[in-house]
Amino acid sequence: MEFSSKLLENAVGEMSQLPGIGKRTALRLVLHLLKQPQEQTSKLAKTLSQMRENINFCVNCHNISDHKLCEICANPNRDKQMVCVVEDIRDVMAIENTSQYRGQYHVLGGKISPMDGMGPGDLNIESLVERVKAGKVKELIFALSSTMEGDTTNFYIFKQIEPFHITTTTIARGISVGDELEYADEVTLGRSILHRIPFETSLKSL
Amino acid sequence: MEFSSKLLENAVGEMSQLPGIGKRTALRLVLHLLKQPQEQTSKLAKTLSQMRENINFCVNCHNISDHKLCEICANPNRDKQMVCVVEDIRDVMAIENTSQYRGQYHVLGGKISPMDGMGPGDLNIESLVERVKAGKVKELIFALSSTMEGDTTNFYIFKQIEPFHITTTTIARGISVGDELEYADEVTLGRSILHRIPFETSLKSL
Repeated sequence: MEFSSKLLENAVGEMSQLPGIGKRTALRLVLHLLKQPQEQTSKLAKTLSQMRENINFCVNCHNISDHKLCEICANPNRDKQMVCVVEDIRDVMAIENTSQYRGQYHVLGGKISPMDGMGPGDLNIESLVERVKAGKVKELIFALSSTMEGDTTNFYIFKQIEPFHITTTTIARGISVGDELEYADEVTLGRSILHRIPFETSLKSL
Repeated sequence: MEFSSKLLENAVGEMSQLPGIGKRTALRLVLHLLKQPQEQTSKLAKTLSQMRENINFCVNCHNISDHKLCEICANPNRDKQMVCVVEDIRDVMAIENTSQYRGQYHVLGGKISPMDGMGPGDLNIESLVERVKAGKVKELIFALSSTMEGDTTNFYIFKQIEPFHITTTTIARGISVGDELEYADEVTLGRSILHRIPFETSLKSL
């Protein structure tokens, strides 16, 4: 792609560094900005810089936060004895949206994945073990995605906290609500039969 | 979507103003920037602001340019008697990539489209008529997309420059090189039969 302007070329080059944005899409976005008032671009640039420079992570759970403690950790009504282990803050947002969980979180910042060069040392595992060691946590809920990397990470953390004898659970895997059985993959269907729950219990969640 | 941080929310809000970028994609992009070194974000913000503030449009053809005249208009080897009328600078880049055209361009900045509130006054039509009026242009090539809006725009310009008696042409429509006849739509196939060219002529472009 040949550009008639160095300024345009630089802008497209930087935009196309973002994941899932190729040169063509970047050009489309940049030309859109050129058609909009100048304030839109300066506001976009300013908010991005401000965010990157001033963003904070909660010292307790590593969730993104504007304060030292995130809103969830600072909330006295949340159950401090329950900690849900998630991969990143998008998972926190997804679980919060369900309004079904009143405990705290621990954001790992990824999964153990040797293929991508992610070892246990790159994740917030040590601080999780410290939280458990401090003695307030009674239950740890694993909510990582159910892939080989997720399972490995779960098992690694499980081994680290085993000496402290706390309850560890993992979120239920099964057929999605509203899904047809015939289209479910056999692993999921198999697990959902193995881990069936009393019918009376299922009535309570209706 | 509820955010744990105002900074994050603002950044996602600004990113999702871009066309084709929803809140979820914006969040993914912003979280990606958070994982990258701070320099990447500041460079992105800087190049976007710089581009928006300092970008120039060629005074002759309205192509994006860092100078008063774009490289094409400033090039003495380009044929000043031929002007190709295009919608936006992406079309200039596409035609330049073919290396088949040695004339100049005129970038309209859109098409006449009452539905989108685009009238002739919003496009660079007046300056095109001025160029024709100045007497140097011998041929005008319409290269707008062949939609109702494109055809309307072509016709509007044609009517404006009719008094000056210059040659007006439109790029050939037909079956794409390498395409199968049976899959072509009938309008295109019909036009390509109507506007057939001498076989000897087609040999020259091989």
